[in-house]
Amino acid sequence: MKLVNLVGDRFKERPAGAVVDSHALMLRGGYMKFVASGIFSQFPPLLRTSKKIEAIIREEMNKIDGQEVLFPVTMPASLWEESGRYSSIASELLRFKDRNDVPMVLGMTHEEAAVQLVREYGTSYSKYPFMIYQIQTKFRDEARPRAGMIRVREFTMKDAYSFHTSMEDLEEYYARCHKAYERIFARAGVPEVVSVKSDSGMMGGSVSHEFMLLTPIGEDTLVICPECGYSANMEAADCIIPAYADEALQELTLTHTPGAHTIEEVVDFLKTDIQKTAKAVVYQENLTDDYVIVFTRGDLDINETKLRNFLGKEIHPAVITAESGIVAGFIGAVNFTGKATLLFDRSLKGAKNLVCGANREDYHYTGFNIERDYGEVEYHDFSKAFAGGICPACGKPVLTISNGIEVGNIFQLGTKYTKTMGMTYLDENGETKNPIMGCYGIGVGRLAASVCEASHDDYGPIWPISIAPWQVHLCCVRSDDAECKAFADKLYDDLQRDGVEVIYDDRDVRAGVMFSDADLLGTPLRVVVSPRNLGEGVVEITSRDKSINLKVPTAEAFDTVKKTVADMFEAINAKVPALF
Amino acid sequence: MKLVNLVGDRFKERPAGAVVDSHALMLRGGYMKFVASGIFSQFPPLLRTSKKIEAIIREEMNKIDGQEVLFPVTMPASLWEESGRYSSIASELLRFKDRNDVPMVLGMTHEEAAVQLVREYGTSYSKYPFMIYQIQTKFRDEARPRAGMIRVREFTMKDAYSFHTSMEDLEEYYARCHKAYERIFARAGVPEVVSVKSDSGMMGGSVSHEFMLLTPIGEDTLVICPECGYSANMEAADCIIPAYADEALQELTLTHTPGAHTIEEVVDFLKTDIQKTAKAVVYQENLTDDYVIVFTRGDLDINETKLRNFLGKEIHPAVITAESGIVAGFIGAVNFTGKATLLFDRSLKGAKNLVCGANREDYHYTGFNIERDYGEVEYHDFSKAFAGGICPACGKPVLTISNGIEVGNIFQLGTKYTKTMGMTYLDENGETKNPIMGCYGIGVGRLAASVCEASHDDYGPIWPISIAPWQVHLCCVRSDDAECKAFADKLYDDLQRDGVEVIYDDRDVRAGVMFSDADLLGTPLRVVVSPRNLGEGVVEITSRDKSINLKVPTAEAFDTVKKTVADMFEAINAKVPALF
Repeated sequence: MKLVNLVGDRFKERPAGAVVDSHALMLRGGYMKFVASGIFSQFPPLLRTSKKIEAIIREEMNKIDGQEVLFPVTMPASLWEESGRYSSIASELLRFKDRNDVPMVLGMTHEEAAVQLVREYGTSYSKYPFMIYQIQTKFRDEARPRAGMIRVREFTMKDAYSFHTSMEDLEEYYARCHKAYERIFARAGVPEVVSVKSDSGMMGGSVSHEFMLLTPIGEDTLVICPECGYSANMEAADCIIPAYADEALQELTLTHTPGAHTIEEVVDFLKTDIQKTAKAVVYQENLTDDYVIVFTRGDLDINETKLRNFLGKEIHPAVITAESGIVAGFIGAVNFTGKATLLFDRSLKGAKNLVCGANREDYHYTGFNIERDYGEVEYHDFSKAFAGGICPACGKPVLTISNGIEVGNIFQLGTKYTKTMGMTYLDENGETKNPIMGCYGIGVGRLAASVCEASHDDYGPIWPISIAPWQVHLCCVRSDDAECKAFADKLYDDLQRDGVEVIYDDRDVRAGVMFSDADLLGTPLRVVVSPRNLGEGVVEITSRDKSINLKVPTAEAFDTVKKTVADMFEAINAKVPALF
Repeated sequence: MKLVNLVGDRFKERPAGAVVDSHALMLRGGYMKFVASGIFSQFPPLLRTSKKIEAIIREEMNKIDGQEVLFPVTMPASLWEESGRYSSIASELLRFKDRNDVPMVLGMTHEEAAVQLVREYGTSYSKYPFMIYQIQTKFRDEARPRAGMIRVREFTMKDAYSFHTSMEDLEEYYARCHKAYERIFARAGVPEVVSVKSDSGMMGGSVSHEFMLLTPIGEDTLVICPECGYSANMEAADCIIPAYADEALQELTLTHTPGAHTIEEVVDFLKTDIQKTAKAVVYQENLTDDYVIVFTRGDLDINETKLRNFLGKEIHPAVITAESGIVAGFIGAVNFTGKATLLFDRSLKGAKNLVCGANREDYHYTGFNIERDYGEVEYHDFSKAFAGGICPACGKPVLTISNGIEVGNIFQLGTKYTKTMGMTYLDENGETKNPIMGCYGIGVGRLAASVCEASHDDYGPIWPISIAPWQVHLCCVRSDDAECKAFADKLYDDLQRDGVEVIYDDRDVRAGVMFSDADLLGTPLRVVVSPRNLGEGVVEITSRDKSINLKVPTAEAFDTVKKTVADMFEAINAKVPALF
């Protein structure tokens, strides 16, 4: 199409409030418009990119035998009551009432709807396995929408649900879907996306993976082993501590530590090693406000997700009241008289002669030995992995910590939904069983923004050709020059007729305006037709990523553009792994 | 794909509660599933049909220079307050609050969002005209969802918004869009869709048209002139009455009409012509409960839409209380002492010697002449057009009344939204003006169901090839016969490879089950491969609409199928009008 007709404005100034680059550039480039917190409208360039991503996803889902369906955005609360999630999910689930006062929800995920759709269909083992998916609008009432299209409240998502009669079958399908996801991200131009082991959270189930684009602006923290390739979301990463050396037990000694509230102050005051301290971190359960105190090694942080999963309850950092009997800053296991559940992190197992709070203002114990002074305890993994920590897979102390944006996820759900919602089938022996489910999500808009985040410069996005709004940006820099205009017009018509997607700028504006608009639209290939070039018998062909910079004889312009577009697709496809 | 894998069940029994055929067949054929009142999930066959309809719409919208965008489903109430519709629309507009108690709505139409998106873009006349459209989920909290996909609460809709700097430009574009709509309906296989003049209702604006598929189950009543092609929704249809013959005025006479409450009882008692009576119909304004009495000729019915538009207020049929001073069954204009607004329909203009209520139990006047006995009045068109009535266009008394389903609509909105929402541009002379809008809608699911309604038999839908879930239904009636299976498998592979959309039934089931499933899926072309056919060296090729019934030599099967598919498309395209 002609750029002069394209709806939307492009501008130079970084918009206030746009913290991440993709957000700033997608506003500056006329890709989207703010409607409300976490809610955007899409101009044609973003919609075009979104549709291309959707087409890639659709093709890959169909290749792994997915069948596209459509679930509703609005669902009756009763459906979510069947699975128990109507009450278990907090306010991210948008609840409302219709005109007849029937409680409803806006779909943030569709496990319930998927089970409802195929509950009657899947009553015999012979129907299994099958996978259904949709590409549809979702609403998640995020507390803190941020970063433009990266964390929004309303978004388009592909969500897929597979149904199986055995764990082996689920696992096999899960691996196929994992591969399909690798293909999707590679085809979208981000083959560098990695999959990490993740926590299943509110979805239920055990094994799950997130697909992460590593970038400093990512909200997720990832633990990666550069040696063996182990990778996990921090929420799900094991924290491994080397065994402690044996040493003689010291006496448990009450020690005056005036004003030393924090672990750093204690270490500083006692001139000891932080790894010889037991730190207490206090939480409260959301429903009851009951206290939970976790002891871990002084240098470690608590992984709240692991703690939450262990408790099976929601928690929040504690507000310590005078009545609680908890002496903030001086909490210890010995002589603790407050009311709380005491938990011990695995990092304390085998540790000797620790410093620990004495439950008395300005006093700590030294020489604290847990089994001797407190008693037998169970140790669990409650701490965060850390840079330089031991890799749980290969055992080398080389873990790195990175940030990433989650662009997709896959879950082995098990029977959580089929059991609660009463979906059953008769197996080969006539026995009634619950099918086993997997679910698989990709956020379309977030993927678009993530690609922009991964591939841009100060002047705009650098779109991979597979998802760029247009493939070729044709500039006629002097549309008042008849020869120049005629040549550019013809090239535009020829390319369009041949199926090349061209955005054609034949406006009567300065070349600088033209080029900065082209940069903002991020089209992979730029063709410049100017009187000067034509005078030399050439056109200029450059790529947005600067790797191509050619002057091509006018007679070869069409063929060269065609071939370069094909080469660009080829380069992307070369990085797409085979499905099987 | 193989039918054995297709998710969804097909069955024989008409489901309880499915009143219209398309609803019953789309449930029986595994097209959709009830989730909640007016909310359905779609199985693959319906999703495939929907996507094909969307593709046709998209192509035609792009041809008239539409640019696809995406508005959000969820919008802040503040946006709807700008236009005034947050308060003016009743409970069809679903209102809710988000987690921060911000009032929001679910989009039932997107004029506000469209203006918000382009308000900054369209500040100069040089940007006009332009049209933006989306294909997106909408929610309308209908009081009475019914008829399956025909009247639902959640639906996919194409909605388009055009912006202009003059009425002439809008009108010209409106005509192009009208033509694009004709093309869409013809391409979807229902060239018989007619456009009728319609009432603009809550959309605002003046000129508008609805595109109607005529069918007895349609909820809309249409007035059509078979002579000149005039057509209008009953709501918007003029009611024309021939001039009355002159006659001598009779005396106004109080007449005892014991027990004659209804106009029929009065006519019967007085042995007069119903066209010589003035009937009173009583309404109340919704907000104030004030009474409005409309007098019309005894044989006519009131068109509440016209009355509502005249008053500019919502009304409902009256509850007549003792205090109102209205004597139900005997209401007249003369000596009326109650408190009400009296209105006179155009059908009474020039009528002589009428019978009319006397505002006294069991009494009517005869010889009532409005101007003489009551005074000067203004006459307006408040009555419904009727079968055999006079065509407002050609003047012939040949009007017919039909039912129709509204499958699309187009509106000349004017400046209602740009004025209220402060969207302006500078014209050539530097003057600030509000752009003029048009809007254009098509419901995707309703169109699918309407096509099914227009084209089905007792056994299933008869889909036009352009929107059929699949183009060819291939039956291998004896998959245990190696030769039969091998031939069918190869034909399936060959057709698929060639881009023909085939649903392949190679199940080990009776031929009857196979054929009834094929009927329910409504695929236009059926190919039957059986040992008996192969023994004769042929395959059977039949069309779902029974117009084709061939035995084709096996060697020609592939080519014949290809050609027949092409012919079917050709037949549809032959009925598609040119765009310009």
